[in-house]
Amino acid sequence: MIDQKVVQFEKKYRPQLEQHLSEYLQNLTAQPYLLKAMTYSVMAGGKRIRPMMILAICQSFERKIDQAVLDVAGSLELLHTYSLIHDDLPEMDNDDLRRGVLTNHKKFGQATAVLAGDGLLTTAFEWLTQTSLNSKTISELVGLLAHAAGVSGMVSGQMSDILGEQQRLNLRQLKKLHQQKTGALILYACQAGAILAGIKLEQRIAIENYGRNFGLAFQIYDDLMDELSTTAKMGKKVHKDQNEHKNTYPSLLGISQSWDALTGAVDRAANSLKTLSQAGVDCSLLQGLLTYFSRKEEQ
Amino acid sequence: MIDQKVVQFEKKYRPQLEQHLSEYLQNLTAQPYLLKAMTYSVMAGGKRIRPMMILAICQSFERKIDQAVLDVAGSLELLHTYSLIHDDLPEMDNDDLRRGVLTNHKKFGQATAVLAGDGLLTTAFEWLTQTSLNSKTISELVGLLAHAAGVSGMVSGQMSDILGEQQRLNLRQLKKLHQQKTGALILYACQAGAILAGIKLEQRIAIENYGRNFGLAFQIYDDLMDELSTTAKMGKKVHKDQNEHKNTYPSLLGISQSWDALTGAVDRAANSLKTLSQAGVDCSLLQGLLTYFSRKEEQ
Repeated sequence: MIDQKVVQFEKKYRPQLEQHLSEYLQNLTAQPYLLKAMTYSVMAGGKRIRPMMILAICQSFERKIDQAVLDVAGSLELLHTYSLIHDDLPEMDNDDLRRGVLTNHKKFGQATAVLAGDGLLTTAFEWLTQTSLNSKTISELVGLLAHAAGVSGMVSGQMSDILGEQQRLNLRQLKKLHQQKTGALILYACQAGAILAGIKLEQRIAIENYGRNFGLAFQIYDDLMDELSTTAKMGKKVHKDQNEHKNTYPSLLGISQSWDALTGAVDRAANSLKTLSQAGVDCSLLQGLLTYFSRKEEQ
Repeated sequence: MIDQKVVQFEKKYRPQLEQHLSEYLQNLTAQPYLLKAMTYSVMAGGKRIRPMMILAICQSFERKIDQAVLDVAGSLELLHTYSLIHDDLPEMDNDDLRRGVLTNHKKFGQATAVLAGDGLLTTAFEWLTQTSLNSKTISELVGLLAHAAGVSGMVSGQMSDILGEQQRLNLRQLKKLHQQKTGALILYACQAGAILAGIKLEQRIAIENYGRNFGLAFQIYDDLMDELSTTAKMGKKVHKDQNEHKNTYPSLLGISQSWDALTGAVDRAANSLKTLSQAGVDCSLLQGLLTYFSRKEEQ
């Protein structure tokens, strides 16, 4: 069961975020077909976990969720969507379905999908520079986002993932791959939230620690769902990892030990919140987000 | 004939830029195969026109060509290289040769080429945030670069180019396509140079005007060379445009009128420098760069 506080929070802010995304895209000056392809994938739904984490951290530290916060969150969702579009390409993971609808290249063609991804990635950075935040904050966010999304993070993770299909990774290598491919961008969400909320270093370290473990839990959970779920429920092809000899937690540890690893990551994330709670921060929402990885929900 | 001042300037600074690029790439933390693919394309040579324009503008306004200037110039070359890698992909222009060597996807495979491009694009922005420039300047450069490279500029230009293969554009449409696809990044080089040199608005407007006409001349010249040159000389396939029914100046206006249009753009660029010269700026180098488009050189 997803925590009720999270459900309420999502009910209030996810539509705001969606509208903010939609309006931003509508106001872009772009080649119309390209913009259509970009908008298609951005507005195809999804849980918006990364931007919602930014909002949740702001809320927890009583930072008003204003236009600037929604800008930073929206920018992250554009960047995340680019990564999905490129990952789905025939030369990459070759997926036909995403979020229950045709993937970008299936709908618009491969050239357009490459360009839609390029456009979203570039626009994510442009959007950050258009916020009302001060230059120092903008520069910091651009640097952190590029670091997380680029060759130190996500892009290298995807490269390792593709090359890893031909070889068996050990657990340490798999963990690193996950940290880069999925963890880096979730960590950025936490850093961005912390920066927007203007919290002090000690608290930021706790939030980053929460983010690192959240990211790991997220990927183990995703691996498990790929094994256990159905296409209808996931909105994308499942059992793919196994078919493609992908390195995953279940393939390395088996189902049961993967659940244990997930529980470990969730516990460590929860632990990171303790010092914050003791300092008077209301961590119930961030604690609640960990119910995304609840076992009962999916089995 | 290329102007002697330009030849001397290139002789001095192009090796510095190349070394700066090489060292930056070497120091990146990245998946090794990915980094190899990125480095392959960045270090494959080329005239480095865009970054050299930044340096030339700094030189003209007596702004010292220091580490920060080389950083901004290097970042632009990374971004330009990304655009070449993605443009060469089979689903795009499907080129096998670039700068006299195999294109990235021919050498490293298509998935790696997509990721190498993604990595370079993202790293271009990260590099800007790592310079010693102040946050305001960094934020301004990130915004302008993203604007030039993204859906307002280059990416939309490439989209129009691909879609345009199926239709006949008129001169106005072709000019817009060129402005987006090639002109926007050359204009950014001029803006970046002007910002680094800290020149006043009036002078910046003149430099931007120079950049716009330089960009147009560049594209007309490139179109003409595709018609007139040989593969050996160009280091890439020629007569491609015609074969693929690309919209070009020669296909629209014929060879002779295309040379006239080129001369017009070069003259307008030269004219933009006049007010600067009158104000005591030594424009001989920027004037000299226009000899890139000299007719004798190539016929």
